[in-house]
Amino acid sequence: MGLQLYDLAGAEPERRFSPYCWRIKMALKHKGLPFDTIPWRFADKDVIAFSGQGRVPVLVDGDQVVFDSWTIATYLEDNYADRPSLFGGDGGRAATRFVNAWADGVLVGGIVRLILTDIFANIDEKDRPYFRKTREERFGMSLEKVTAERETNVLAFRKNLEPICAVLGAQPYLGGKEPAYVDYAVFGCFQFARCISRFPLLLEDDPVWAWRDRLLSAFDGFARKALSYAV
Amino acid sequence: MGLQLYDLAGAEPERRFSPYCWRIKMALKHKGLPFDTIPWRFADKDVIAFSGQGRVPVLVDGDQVVFDSWTIATYLEDNYADRPSLFGGDGGRAATRFVNAWADGVLVGGIVRLILTDIFANIDEKDRPYFRKTREERFGMSLEKVTAERETNVLAFRKNLEPICAVLGAQPYLGGKEPAYVDYAVFGCFQFARCISRFPLLLEDDPVWAWRDRLLSAFDGFARKALSYAV
Repeated sequence: MGLQLYDLAGAEPERRFSPYCWRIKMALKHKGLPFDTIPWRFADKDVIAFSGQGRVPVLVDGDQVVFDSWTIATYLEDNYADRPSLFGGDGGRAATRFVNAWADGVLVGGIVRLILTDIFANIDEKDRPYFRKTREERFGMSLEKVTAERETNVLAFRKNLEPICAVLGAQPYLGGKEPAYVDYAVFGCFQFARCISRFPLLLEDDPVWAWRDRLLSAFDGFARKALSYAV
Repeated sequence: MGLQLYDLAGAEPERRFSPYCWRIKMALKHKGLPFDTIPWRFADKDVIAFSGQGRVPVLVDGDQVVFDSWTIATYLEDNYADRPSLFGGDGGRAATRFVNAWADGVLVGGIVRLILTDIFANIDEKDRPYFRKTREERFGMSLEKVTAERETNVLAFRKNLEPICAVLGAQPYLGGKEPAYVDYAVFGCFQFARCISRFPLLLEDDPVWAWRDRLLSAFDGFARKALSYAV
């Protein structure tokens, strides 16, 4: 039996939108490891209770159960060391951790504020009360109010992408000549938006768009084939 | 003859405050390479004209002349490959480039807005008209206006440090168990502030403070011994 990944799904089982799960799906492809995904919803806490916590991604590899995207990435790197490296050495692993943390806060945090109502509209009906309650508590306002000013707020969001643009002016991928986990850590955030929202986050003439497009084409178009709004 | 580094100085020749020069001084220490610094002011464009451009750091290594801190760092890594690595492999070099670009924009950019008047007060008298003119053009307002709200603005600035805190919660240095160029790229920005301004940028109970303190102690306290305001 191959690896199994519990993967956050929307109302449609094939709408997979978790940025953290996308990181791991790209990492599994990079390692060339066959895997199956199991659609999972926020309400299915009991389904992953065997992992000892309540969030995805959860990776099952034989008798190993691993959760948290960073922990899974390092698990894959260490346990499949003969496969293509995700980090390109210890220095890469250490420095990628910063980019991963930056993407968690600045990208996921920023994107959620722009597409929160779209997430709500696309998740399973059984997830909606939980989602509205937890997110409205977190933001201290209604979902609709969070995204109300998004046409303006996206301009400030795009400013945060400047370090990515600076790097892409000098090398084709954040990982250098070829993509690495540092790319997937960031790409997962944009793929999250693309899979759950029609809101145009990136501009077509932006270097980030072109870089994302190359990653959409990677692994025989794996990420491009996913159910998305193709923005 | 050892290596020579043209190093931005304030009114006092020993007040060295360029974030980019600090990155390279730490990198030279990391490599264990002996070097001399030559104090340089903004008005001394002719002194470094031999480099074909007008900014420091400029490194002179025999008949080699290298400028731009990232270019110098990669030059040192490639030409002194038998010395301790700055990047820990190609993956580290690639991912460090992102952190370096992030530090250029978010840290240097953010810090300058907080301490601009302090820079003006500490640079050589002959540099002041040039500095005021170029910076007031850049910001579209007086130096004094840029820093007027800094007690409030520093709170937003500190929010940007969250990815650093996240990484330092898991490993002692951005480079992992030991410091690497990814640390110096960020440290240089804080050392810049510390050497030219009394404004308290960091809080003593912050993990970034403790990390910076370890780097101030590195290489026999090299950075701590520099003329600074010790904030």
